[in-house]
Amino acid sequence: MSEKPATRLFVESDLAEGAVVGLSPDHAHFLRSVLRLEPGRWVTLFNGRDGEWSARIDGIGKGWASLAVGDHLRTQTSCPDVWLYFAPIKRARLDFLVQKATELGVRRIQPVVTQRTIVERVKGDRLSANVTEAAEQCERLDLPEICEPVRLDRALADHPEGRTLVACVEFGDARPIAEVVSELPPGAPVTLLVGPEGGFTPEERALLENRTNARFAGLGPRILRAETAGLAALTVWQALAGDWAESPPKRA
Amino acid sequence: MSEKPATRLFVESDLAEGAVVGLSPDHAHFLRSVLRLEPGRWVTLFNGRDGEWSARIDGIGKGWASLAVGDHLRTQTSCPDVWLYFAPIKRARLDFLVQKATELGVRRIQPVVTQRTIVERVKGDRLSANVTEAAEQCERLDLPEICEPVRLDRALADHPEGRTLVACVEFGDARPIAEVVSELPPGAPVTLLVGPEGGFTPEERALLENRTNARFAGLGPRILRAETAGLAALTVWQALAGDWAESPPKRA
Repeated sequence: MSEKPATRLFVESDLAEGAVVGLSPDHAHFLRSVLRLEPGRWVTLFNGRDGEWSARIDGIGKGWASLAVGDHLRTQTSCPDVWLYFAPIKRARLDFLVQKATELGVRRIQPVVTQRTIVERVKGDRLSANVTEAAEQCERLDLPEICEPVRLDRALADHPEGRTLVACVEFGDARPIAEVVSELPPGAPVTLLVGPEGGFTPEERALLENRTNARFAGLGPRILRAETAGLAALTVWQALAGDWAESPPKRA
Repeated sequence: MSEKPATRLFVESDLAEGAVVGLSPDHAHFLRSVLRLEPGRWVTLFNGRDGEWSARIDGIGKGWASLAVGDHLRTQTSCPDVWLYFAPIKRARLDFLVQKATELGVRRIQPVVTQRTIVERVKGDRLSANVTEAAEQCERLDLPEICEPVRLDRALADHPEGRTLVACVEFGDARPIAEVVSELPPGAPVTLLVGPEGGFTPEERALLENRTNARFAGLGPRILRAETAGLAALTVWQALAGDWAESPPKRA
């Protein structure tokens, strides 16, 4: 096999030299009926633990596929330690946010219900499917963690003490986000918090302002939709303090 | 009228003290049947030329509305001189890109057809409607210009000589985008070019490398979808060299 296979799948199975992997019915169907791959063809596998491996299709049928793990292509690494806390939004926009946050290397996605949040329910299964597909396509070696929604006060109470929180807000002493991020140690764990489109209430603002280690960042003079704001904050952090100093993967 | 009206509309009419504005049937329907506004209520108007004005509904009926222009709320400014050149993508993703690029303050959106572009046609009317709505909601004072698709070689031939071109690519001597943007004079006119998901061909790469004033920027170690890449490039430029050093508009 001369180059890395284009088809990339996230699996739960352990991956190691000589291992045999049985695919899920969904994955088997995808390879067999959508991509029309046959025994002898290669795919790429990752599981978030063992890095990335090539694997050869040994057998494939209706609802099943058996793969023989081949070469260890990449060692396991994880995306930088950046969390995105955001007020839930409606389905299509949420899907967009979660997919692109995955491409942008987020490690944890935490929906946070605020007083002005309109949407409270988030369908975990669909989000997980979106996240997995985005992770497969963007070639990251891990999946972001998707958390159940929690209320803001609880999210803040549970937030690790020493972890920096950057709240993207339009009030008070918010400074431009590039300036705020530039002051953070590169790669240091960070949480980016984006509020609902109605903004934070005065009580929520007080809750944030009373935290040690919380910083307030502005995202420019235009009003951004919540998903735009979340992705923008993530982008700026990755570009200035995250892993965007690294080269892209080699391509043909 | 004590605070700025929430409903904000882009109109073609001239705006000045004492002017009378007749709304389009679509806008009239929106105010009357969707928002249920009545005479005496105020809206906000902008036209990309005369800044932002309040306006009071004088009369409103089925398919028509007459507004009396009131106070001059904001002086005309335009978004920074940043253009986004990108290979066209499918409808839903294109809508997202155009909407969010508008929120992110792009001045011109130029679809560029490359050899590996899959989608060639772009429906101008629908894009314009998306852009107008996004501009109304994000509170910018101008609309981005949406151009007809052109081929890459023509787009490059027509590209103003002295204008910096930042191509977001995965080859050659691409440096991290934050580094590339940091070297540009803040606010200086710039074009951000994002290629198709299949990448540029060797011929296209040569075309780019042979230009003076072209720079090559990387967007990190993950593979980004085209719309993610476009928005990310725009975000980084705005945050570091654009107008994100400015405060957000004052809100209640």
